[in-house]
Amino acid sequence: MYNKKMHHLGSVRSVIRELFEFGKKRALEVGADKVYDFSLGNPSVPAPECVNQAIKELVNEMPSTALHGYTSAQGDLNVRKAIAEYINERFATKLGADSIYMTVGAAASLCITLRALSDGQDEFVTVAPFFPEYTVFTEATGATLKVVPMKKDDFQVDLVEFEKAITPKTKGIILNSPNNPSGVVYTKETIIGVTTILGNKQKEYGHPIYLISDEPYRELVYGNVEVPYLMNYYDNTIVCYSYSKSLSLPGERIGYIALSDKLQDERDIYACVCGAGRALGYVCAPSLMQRVVEKCLRATPDIGEYKKNRDLIYGALTEMGYTCINPDGAFYLFVKALEDDANAFCDRAKQLGLLIVPGDTFGAPGFCRISYCVSYDMIKRSLPAFKELMESYK
Amino acid sequence: MYNKKMHHLGSVRSVIRELFEFGKKRALEVGADKVYDFSLGNPSVPAPECVNQAIKELVNEMPSTALHGYTSAQGDLNVRKAIAEYINERFATKLGADSIYMTVGAAASLCITLRALSDGQDEFVTVAPFFPEYTVFTEATGATLKVVPMKKDDFQVDLVEFEKAITPKTKGIILNSPNNPSGVVYTKETIIGVTTILGNKQKEYGHPIYLISDEPYRELVYGNVEVPYLMNYYDNTIVCYSYSKSLSLPGERIGYIALSDKLQDERDIYACVCGAGRALGYVCAPSLMQRVVEKCLRATPDIGEYKKNRDLIYGALTEMGYTCINPDGAFYLFVKALEDDANAFCDRAKQLGLLIVPGDTFGAPGFCRISYCVSYDMIKRSLPAFKELMESYK
Repeated sequence: MYNKKMHHLGSVRSVIRELFEFGKKRALEVGADKVYDFSLGNPSVPAPECVNQAIKELVNEMPSTALHGYTSAQGDLNVRKAIAEYINERFATKLGADSIYMTVGAAASLCITLRALSDGQDEFVTVAPFFPEYTVFTEATGATLKVVPMKKDDFQVDLVEFEKAITPKTKGIILNSPNNPSGVVYTKETIIGVTTILGNKQKEYGHPIYLISDEPYRELVYGNVEVPYLMNYYDNTIVCYSYSKSLSLPGERIGYIALSDKLQDERDIYACVCGAGRALGYVCAPSLMQRVVEKCLRATPDIGEYKKNRDLIYGALTEMGYTCINPDGAFYLFVKALEDDANAFCDRAKQLGLLIVPGDTFGAPGFCRISYCVSYDMIKRSLPAFKELMESYK
Repeated sequence: MYNKKMHHLGSVRSVIRELFEFGKKRALEVGADKVYDFSLGNPSVPAPECVNQAIKELVNEMPSTALHGYTSAQGDLNVRKAIAEYINERFATKLGADSIYMTVGAAASLCITLRALSDGQDEFVTVAPFFPEYTVFTEATGATLKVVPMKKDDFQVDLVEFEKAITPKTKGIILNSPNNPSGVVYTKETIIGVTTILGNKQKEYGHPIYLISDEPYRELVYGNVEVPYLMNYYDNTIVCYSYSKSLSLPGERIGYIALSDKLQDERDIYACVCGAGRALGYVCAPSLMQRVVEKCLRATPDIGEYKKNRDLIYGALTEMGYTCINPDGAFYLFVKALEDDANAFCDRAKQLGLLIVPGDTFGAPGFCRISYCVSYDMIKRSLPAFKELMESYK
């Protein structure tokens, strides 16, 4: 007498949530200082100062009914205009306010976009390793998600496998770079490879294939690494953005969908996005936060802290003999498990107080994810346990 | 190559939106003081002082990563606990934190609840006049919405018609009181009538029928009118609440779903709600606003202003000869059109600068909705136009 699929989705605890609960229990048994929780992707760096400043200014200066009242369904016009102009300035695009639909964060951006495009019989394609909720979001529209196996040496896209995955039923691709869970940034070469294949397949099948770029980690890159802006490589690109990580406010749920001005049937797709927003109950993203991001368009959190963390944990783990890519972005380290079964490996780590997530969830068996958006001190304290773990396999 | 249904939903401008655009154009032609926009339901009363105070306190006192970080998917535990206790205190229920799922406003509450319950082949039933997005939200789950014709004399529920509408396929009922668009509060007698029928039908069919109470206008009632709390009348009740109107912050999108502690399969339904939240991308409602409502649980806006508006417009219009019910709640007056076709009537009103919404949208042909959440002064200035409209029909 209820929706069995929803029941399943709501009852199965995610592996990450299980770990989190275990951590709390374990802390009571052995002391909180002996539990090293690397499971969650909750930013550990405070929001840039301008966020709280903007909140206070808006509250003090704007009339209540305007500040807290409905904006238009697709978001406040001035906010959308400011975002479009900012994107144009950075990436030489030609977006307008009506290229942008404000959303309640990354999950909403994806759910709305998939619902806008999917007729229910379609296939979407993503590349492993990938964020597991993609499957949930895609299947909620009646479509299916096909996963391109991962390229284990560098976690870029295996172009041969990618090409094989595209069929006449392919409606769209979801790419996530900087990547959760690998921390890898897809290179220009990868993007050119992917978009060349898509361009050819579009011609061959005679219909558009949309490239959905899920990029909440765009601003979290270290050094001078460039994250290619996909609209500049492929016309049929839709960007799903969230300020969760770039402004360190994941709880506030604020982001946007941006349609390339060169998108085929651009006005029709925008209408679909508006319709999907309506059908899913997503009209008018939180009004105060819309205006906060407008005021903080140019802000970034202090990623120096993440970089310090990355350098510490990457350096220490590789020195101990662990195998992993030095991640250019996001705040994840993706490490090869010391046995074939990453679940067994993570279980053994758990006994030493190390809470890390097996890669199976991300379509990457044999690997595990370490979220280093934690305190530098906790990483330091955890290193002996990583050492002990390594030694237990010798 | 996209979802045609979504395209339709996103392209068809709502009647209300059309009116709004017309108003802006008209204001340029004849002057803003000669346009009387009664079309929107955007609160005209500022949020109670405690809202902005709470925002500032939270921003000043809570660490950024805690305040703006993810809460648990169903909402912050303390917030849910506080809301449950507040409901228990007011309505003698026995809810716990896990009876509550925090949402991004009323639309989200409904979309999640319908998705949690609907298997795709079900029927939901509502009573005219009704909020038109119910159809959109219901159909988005694959289910259908059946509408009980309105009871024209008092806009309560026609119990004979209501009983006829319930079939073995009925999964749930959506009731909205105080009602948008009629402003009517369903009486205790109406609620007893409705729930008695539902109780009997449940027994007859051998499966639960859920009563979904959509009540964003609960706190907007005038005089000593009681709004019956449906959980106290019917065990299988799910309350969809939003703070949009009660705290005058519709743009902030914050509300909750509350399951009666006596709900059949209560834990299973809660799991379905969590699953539906996940499938629709609705995990973790905006974190700052969750804590704001916790701090403002007991606050209400100054409804004295709405009452003054109601008394003015109801008094003046009935004196001119218009037929309408004196609404006990919300901020709408539902007036009988002066000809059979309410669209033609509203068009004529429009020529006089009066922007009012034909009832057809609400399943109530022959009537029209006047939103009096506007300035007292505008109502006063509009009265000659209402008089002229009346006279044009004599």
